[in-house]
Amino acid sequence: MEEIIMFSEASAKAGITYPKGFLAAGVKAGLKKSGNPDVALIYTEKEAAVAGTFTKNAVAAAPVGVSKKVVATHTAHAIVANSGCANACTGAQGEEDAAAMQQITADALGCTAQDVVVASTGIIGKLLPMDKVKLGIHAAAHALSPNGSPDAGNAILTTDTYSKAGTATVVLGGMEVRLGIIAKGSGMIRPDMATVLCFITTDADIDALLLQEALSEVMEHSLNMISIDGDMSTNDMAIILANGAAGNPKIAEKNADYEAFKGVLLALCQGISEKIAADGEGATKFLTIHVVGARSFADAKTVGMSVANSPLVKTAFFGEDPNWGRVICAVGYAGVPMDPERTTVKFGGIPVYAGGVGVPYDAEALHAVMSGHDIVIEIDLNEGDVEAKVWTCDFSYEYVKINGEYHT
Amino acid sequence: MEEIIMFSEASAKAGITYPKGFLAAGVKAGLKKSGNPDVALIYTEKEAAVAGTFTKNAVAAAPVGVSKKVVATHTAHAIVANSGCANACTGAQGEEDAAAMQQITADALGCTAQDVVVASTGIIGKLLPMDKVKLGIHAAAHALSPNGSPDAGNAILTTDTYSKAGTATVVLGGMEVRLGIIAKGSGMIRPDMATVLCFITTDADIDALLLQEALSEVMEHSLNMISIDGDMSTNDMAIILANGAAGNPKIAEKNADYEAFKGVLLALCQGISEKIAADGEGATKFLTIHVVGARSFADAKTVGMSVANSPLVKTAFFGEDPNWGRVICAVGYAGVPMDPERTTVKFGGIPVYAGGVGVPYDAEALHAVMSGHDIVIEIDLNEGDVEAKVWTCDFSYEYVKINGEYHT
Repeated sequence: MEEIIMFSEASAKAGITYPKGFLAAGVKAGLKKSGNPDVALIYTEKEAAVAGTFTKNAVAAAPVGVSKKVVATHTAHAIVANSGCANACTGAQGEEDAAAMQQITADALGCTAQDVVVASTGIIGKLLPMDKVKLGIHAAAHALSPNGSPDAGNAILTTDTYSKAGTATVVLGGMEVRLGIIAKGSGMIRPDMATVLCFITTDADIDALLLQEALSEVMEHSLNMISIDGDMSTNDMAIILANGAAGNPKIAEKNADYEAFKGVLLALCQGISEKIAADGEGATKFLTIHVVGARSFADAKTVGMSVANSPLVKTAFFGEDPNWGRVICAVGYAGVPMDPERTTVKFGGIPVYAGGVGVPYDAEALHAVMSGHDIVIEIDLNEGDVEAKVWTCDFSYEYVKINGEYHT
Repeated sequence: MEEIIMFSEASAKAGITYPKGFLAAGVKAGLKKSGNPDVALIYTEKEAAVAGTFTKNAVAAAPVGVSKKVVATHTAHAIVANSGCANACTGAQGEEDAAAMQQITADALGCTAQDVVVASTGIIGKLLPMDKVKLGIHAAAHALSPNGSPDAGNAILTTDTYSKAGTATVVLGGMEVRLGIIAKGSGMIRPDMATVLCFITTDADIDALLLQEALSEVMEHSLNMISIDGDMSTNDMAIILANGAAGNPKIAEKNADYEAFKGVLLALCQGISEKIAADGEGATKFLTIHVVGARSFADAKTVGMSVANSPLVKTAFFGEDPNWGRVICAVGYAGVPMDPERTTVKFGGIPVYAGGVGVPYDAEALHAVMSGHDIVIEIDLNEGDVEAKVWTCDFSYEYVKINGEYHT
């Protein structure tokens, strides 16, 4: 059996409860003004190896510190997450509240506090209404279900317009190993405070340190390649739980099974990254910046991010304007060695810039590219043979509306 | 007599023709669809020391290369500039055209081509219509006048909503020394391709190398502190001509006169920087990010730029939302050592964040600050005693409109 990665409707429904032994729930605890679900719970009765990557922002939210300690123990049984309040910039009270979320969850599930990962997303600077959170966690614990992934996925959303989830299957040592993922993106436009939460479950049996290494490497090539840069928010977090229920030969070294597992994890996380970018706040276009011919991955990523973060590029694509001048300009100031004469730019496969000047193009064909929803901007630096893809979206009136509205 | 720096209406009118011996003109050559003035000329019959700073973008426009060579000769007689076409990404033809602009100007004024600085701003990737440019330069040469500064100032504008100009006076060695400035900002919102052109004239007598040193240092604390970052466009250029007509004792070493001259040049350039930031594309607010308590100027600038470049901060101010969470988040990801507990944030002098949490504030007083046009965001890192100011503007629907409209 080949590995299978899916982002179909059925797959989204299965999500994090697709791997064996995982239950999930999402409930309405009243943390959001909208009344939408806002407390999510993921649980594995069988102890799971845990790994995580976290925001590098010096202003990190309380749950980030709490969850880092859980990951340091290498095992966990549950993830509790809330939306509507980030529990960031909340001082000592915020730390107490994050610890209380752990304890309440542990008590409800019959595990220890150190078995519970905590995540929050929402407004910065507000304290969690702990009475509501407590009731919400209890309700979620009662609602835990092998079909609970969609509810959990919905309960972590903020300004996302739809829930993101997927599943994957890979055969390791003759045993079917399953992976499931849910994530939220959010607003965004550039590496900023848009919080990304990403929860991955798998029934693979894998050593916790190898799990961490695989996750860290995969994140560099998936969530960290969105222009909602994972390491910038106060609350960003990606967590994977591996409970070993698949019964595969335990992955305890970097063998073929490790590589196969990492490969399918990468594909799953890249798929969810595309979905997050496409659902950026106010987005009307999904843009893939494909940089090729770079000397290093770092160079390729830097160029891709420079283009992806340019408001002038993003507004041009919103306006369906094939303004290659803004693209090559953003390449030029990226700070990576490049020769304007050797660099080429294509929109949707159509050359628009080469040899230091614009390339004549078929206006009708290019118009068809620019008026589409998914657009690939290919930049060939002709400096080496390394490539990278950065995913982003355009910049619309709606973005300004969403973020310019007074919502403290 | 004290030094005097002015940005009044009278001062704007005097501008670059305020110092002795300078003439200027601005004419309509038909380069802009709007029919607005688009060719500017500045001339000093008396040879001037020249200094300049240029874009650091790897994709630099043709006139940048041409003008760097002029500055390398240390003397010049004229500056010719056009708007409506950037002459960037125009290959060998673009270089020929920039050189032709020099030669046409030199012929019209009776100097040599190497005496003429060339600058362009406008659309990238289009060739200059040289027949129109030639007629424009001839017309401008005929129109040169001691009252020509406003015309020249208007002829370099692109999406600016008003012309920026100022004057300054300082007494050196008993002689009155005058300085004049015109500049264009442009769109823009973050270090990007928005072209800044800044032309400064002075009748000071000063050695060209010292003039360059003074200009370079001043730019670091003025134009490079706008979030329209000077070194990012394909065409950015700041040029100063010093013709010595004031008759002051020649500044040939770093004496008190040098310091006084540099001080007044700094004040003049900071004043014009504020005007450029306040006229950002679609701006409804002028924001000063005042970072204090930093360990170094570089740290203070990095923090200020991180806040100034955050679309989430900028849209919050557009919405008059005192969202300090977005500000402290941008401080946190700036990459500069900072302690969330020690950092404080004030909006218009009103504390909003301290000790790691939000500070209760008088809502009415803060509303008055947020609804004003000029807002100071003060960030105290409490790490050292260095400060820096970064100037920017908010981010509005109008920005998206201006840049999302198809205008190739």
